[in-house]
Amino acid sequence: MRGITIKEILAKSKVDEEVTLRGWVRTRRGNKHLSFIALNDGSTFQNLQVVADHPKFEEDLLKQITSGASLEVEGKIVASSGTQNIELQADKITVLGTCDPDEYPIQPKKHSLEFLRENAHLRFRTATFGAVFRIRHAVSYAIHNYFNKNGFYYFHSPIITASDAEGAGEMFRVTTLDAENPPRTEDGKIDYSEDFFGKETNLTVSGQLEGELAATALGKIYTFGPTFRAENSNTTRHLAEFWMIEPEMAFYDLQDDMELAEDFTKSIINYVLDNCMEDLEFLSKRLQEEEKVMKQEDQSMELIEKLRFVVENDFEKISYTEAFNILRNSKPNKKKRFQYPIDEWGVDLQSEHERYLVEKKFQKPVIIYDYPKDIKAFYMRQNDDGKTVAAMDVLFPQIGEVIGGSQREERLDKLEQRMDEMNIPKEEMSWYLDTRRFGTVVHSGFGLGFERMVLFVTGMGNIRDVIPFPRTPKNARF
Amino acid sequence: MRGITIKEILAKSKVDEEVTLRGWVRTRRGNKHLSFIALNDGSTFQNLQVVADHPKFEEDLLKQITSGASLEVEGKIVASSGTQNIELQADKITVLGTCDPDEYPIQPKKHSLEFLRENAHLRFRTATFGAVFRIRHAVSYAIHNYFNKNGFYYFHSPIITASDAEGAGEMFRVTTLDAENPPRTEDGKIDYSEDFFGKETNLTVSGQLEGELAATALGKIYTFGPTFRAENSNTTRHLAEFWMIEPEMAFYDLQDDMELAEDFTKSIINYVLDNCMEDLEFLSKRLQEEEKVMKQEDQSMELIEKLRFVVENDFEKISYTEAFNILRNSKPNKKKRFQYPIDEWGVDLQSEHERYLVEKKFQKPVIIYDYPKDIKAFYMRQNDDGKTVAAMDVLFPQIGEVIGGSQREERLDKLEQRMDEMNIPKEEMSWYLDTRRFGTVVHSGFGLGFERMVLFVTGMGNIRDVIPFPRTPKNARF
Repeated sequence: MRGITIKEILAKSKVDEEVTLRGWVRTRRGNKHLSFIALNDGSTFQNLQVVADHPKFEEDLLKQITSGASLEVEGKIVASSGTQNIELQADKITVLGTCDPDEYPIQPKKHSLEFLRENAHLRFRTATFGAVFRIRHAVSYAIHNYFNKNGFYYFHSPIITASDAEGAGEMFRVTTLDAENPPRTEDGKIDYSEDFFGKETNLTVSGQLEGELAATALGKIYTFGPTFRAENSNTTRHLAEFWMIEPEMAFYDLQDDMELAEDFTKSIINYVLDNCMEDLEFLSKRLQEEEKVMKQEDQSMELIEKLRFVVENDFEKISYTEAFNILRNSKPNKKKRFQYPIDEWGVDLQSEHERYLVEKKFQKPVIIYDYPKDIKAFYMRQNDDGKTVAAMDVLFPQIGEVIGGSQREERLDKLEQRMDEMNIPKEEMSWYLDTRRFGTVVHSGFGLGFERMVLFVTGMGNIRDVIPFPRTPKNARF
Repeated sequence: MRGITIKEILAKSKVDEEVTLRGWVRTRRGNKHLSFIALNDGSTFQNLQVVADHPKFEEDLLKQITSGASLEVEGKIVASSGTQNIELQADKITVLGTCDPDEYPIQPKKHSLEFLRENAHLRFRTATFGAVFRIRHAVSYAIHNYFNKNGFYYFHSPIITASDAEGAGEMFRVTTLDAENPPRTEDGKIDYSEDFFGKETNLTVSGQLEGELAATALGKIYTFGPTFRAENSNTTRHLAEFWMIEPEMAFYDLQDDMELAEDFTKSIINYVLDNCMEDLEFLSKRLQEEEKVMKQEDQSMELIEKLRFVVENDFEKISYTEAFNILRNSKPNKKKRFQYPIDEWGVDLQSEHERYLVEKKFQKPVIIYDYPKDIKAFYMRQNDDGKTVAAMDVLFPQIGEVIGGSQREERLDKLEQRMDEMNIPKEEMSWYLDTRRFGTVVHSGFGLGFERMVLFVTGMGNIRDVIPFPRTPKNARF
C-alpha cells in the first residue's frame, strides 16, 4: 500500500496526475461549498492543500475531517494560486482514523513548549517539532557522512562499563541484583560478584578511553552513542541521557584536533543549510516572533544569518592565558559584574566568561586551548611549561561549550605520574596504559555534545526540546 | 602533523613521490643488509612495504623495529615487484613508540580468537579484527545511507526507560539509590520515588514503541541504538548489550514491511561487496582455512559467494502455516531428529527448525509471516482468521533470525482487548494508545540485530568477535 509522499509530489508531480495520498489533517478551513484541508505526512515541512468540493462527499465524512485525523485522499493534482504551485483536488476521501477535537491535546493553535513537553509523545505532529526532528536527523546524517568521507570508522564503545573515563562524573548504576534483598558478603557489604557482570557496573560517561584503543589500531575512529550523567542539574543545557560524538585520531596533535573540530562543525552546519532550508526558515520565523513577544533588548542575529556567519568566518583561537588576560582586563570583571571574578591564573572559566568572549569580545565561535592542568583530566598531554595541558574547548554563541577535546598524553611515564597525582588506579586501567606501552603514538580527539549542536542549529532555547524524550531529574516519561 | 595514509598512498601516490608515513609494524623480515617492514596504519587492510637499507640506519634504531612498534618513515615511493606495485624506500625512520616483543601479547603469528577476546583492547591491531571492524563501520554507514536516501528520519529512542516494550524480557535496573542502604517506604519496600527519575527505571529492550510515536507523525523513521537483555545466555549469538536498528513506517502494511526488509538487507550486503572487498577476501580465506582445520563435512558456501547469492536471489516468503506443514512432514521430524518435535500447529519455531528451512529446504533467506498470535507480542496486528498476527521474521543461513517485525495493531479496540488478555497495563501505556486514539494509521516496522548482520557479512562464528567490547554474563571488561 506504500504510496507517494508530499515531498515526492512537490518535487515531481505534474498537473493532471492522479495520486493517492495519506497523511494527517493539520487544519481545515473553507465555506459551505468547499473545504481546504492542509494535509501533512511528515515527509517535509510543507503541507499539501487538499480541496474538497462538498457536494462530492457525505456530510458525515466531512464532519470527521478535523485536525489530527488521518486521511487517504485520491484525486488529481491541479494548479494552485497559493504558496505552492499545486494542490490536490479530491475525488475520494477515506477517514483512516478520526480525532476527537474535544480530546485531542494538539489543537490548531500555538501551544507553549512546556505544554508540548508534557505531551512529548504527540509533539512530533506540530510544525515546530517536525522541523526540529527532521533537522536532528540531518545533523546525524551529516556527521556520519563527514567521517565516512574522511576515512574515519564508526566505533561502538560500550554503554555498560566498569570504568569511569573522567575520573569524576556522577554515574548511574546498572544492576540485576534484587534491590529489596541483595546478596551480601560476609562483612555485610553488597556482593557485586553476584551481579550480572560479576562486579559493579555503570552507564558510560564517555567512550573516549575505548575510542583510544581503536584509534591506535584503525587510525581514525569516531563514536556516536548515548552517554549519561547522574547529575541533579535542572538547566536548559543539561540532560541525564544525551548523545555524544567522540572522534579519536592517531597521529593528530592539538593543532590538527582544533582544525578538525572547526572543519567538522562547519560541515555539519553547511549540510543543514543545504538540506533543511524550509525547516530552518520556519524555525527562524518562530524565533523572531518569540523574541518580539519577549521584547528582548539584545536582538540576536537571525538564525540562518547566524549559521552562515559561523561557516563563513574563522573560529578565533586563543590560549587560556590570553583568554584569562582578556577577561581580567574586561569591563564586567573590573566593574565586578561577573559572578565569579577573574583574578588568579588557573581559575576555571564559567559560562558567563565564555559568553563574554564569544558574544561580546569576538562575536564568533572561539577555541580556547592550553588550559591549566589542574582543571583538566588526567589523560591530557602535559605541555612543556609544566602548568598547562594540550586541551581545547570550542565555544559557540548562546550555547557555550559544544566541544571539549585534547591531545592525549602518549608518554607512559608522564601519564602514570599524572594518574598517581590524581589518585587514578593504574592497575584497573592497565588495558588503557597498554596503548602507551606498545607502539605508543601521538593522538588526539574530542567530544561533541550532539544535542548542543542541534540546539544551536535549530535555535531552540531548551535542550529538552531537541531530544525526543528528555531524561532529567525525576522525569523518565514515555 | 596529519600525514598521508596508506589508503591514500595506494590510491594516488606515484613512483618517486616523497612521503612521510606513520603506522605500526606488522612484521619485519629481511637479511643482514636489508629489512622489509610491513607497516599498517589501520586505514586499509593492506600494509605498505617499507624497505630499509641497513647501512643508512643506526643499529640501535633497527633493533627497535619490532612487531607492534610505531614508526614514522620518510622516504620515496618506488616500484615494487611484490603484491603491491609500490613500496616505500626509507630515508629516515623514527621509532615513535617501542614495543617489547617479550611483553607484547600480539605476536606475529596466528592467535586463537579466544586469546584475542581476552586481549580485546589490542585485537583491533590484528588483520582479522581490523577487517571485521572496518566492515562493521561499512554496515553502519550503509544503514544510515539507505534510510536517508529513502526518506527515513533517524530517531533516538530513549535508553533509560520506565516501560518494557516486549511485555517480557529481563531488564537491567538503572539507579542512583545507595545500594548498601536504600531509602525505604513505611512498609519497608525500596522507595523508588527517591531514585533519580522518581521511579524504577531500566535499560531499554527496544525502541519500537517510541518509534511508533514518531512514525505516526514524521512518516518514516528508524532507530539505531544500543538495546539490552539481562539474560543469562552464554551462546555465540547472544549479547547483554547489542545494537539494534528499528525502522517504523506509517502507511506500510505487512507486505510493504517484508519488501522493505528484503531490499534493506540486500542493500547493506551490496554496499559491503562494493566497498570492502579486500577485507572480505581476507576473512573468506581465513574462514576457508578454519574449515579445513575443522575438517567440516558440510562445506558451506564461500563467504563472498554466499553474500552474492543472497543479493541475487529473492527471499523465500512462506506463512507460518506453510512452514509448519513443511517441517511436520520433513525427514528430521519424522525420524524424530528434532529436539523439539513439530506436532501441533501453534508451536514456536526453534533454531533447528529455522536452520532446516533456510539451509536444507530453501537454501536462501526465508521470511516467515502470519505467526500464531499466542507466541507473539501484544502490539502485532490481528489477522481476520482470529488465530494469527501479521508478524514476520527474516531468517538467514547460519545465523538464524536477523529481523523480526510486524504490522502494528492500529485499531484501538482490538489493541486494548489484546492488552487485557495479556495483562498489559493500559493506564501506563496511555501515551502509546494515544496514537490509536488520534488519527490512527496502518503502520509497520521491524528490528534488525546489528551484530547478527555483521556476523553474517564477516562470516565470523561468535557474536563476541564482531562488537568491540562484548558484554556477557560475568564480563564487562574494558
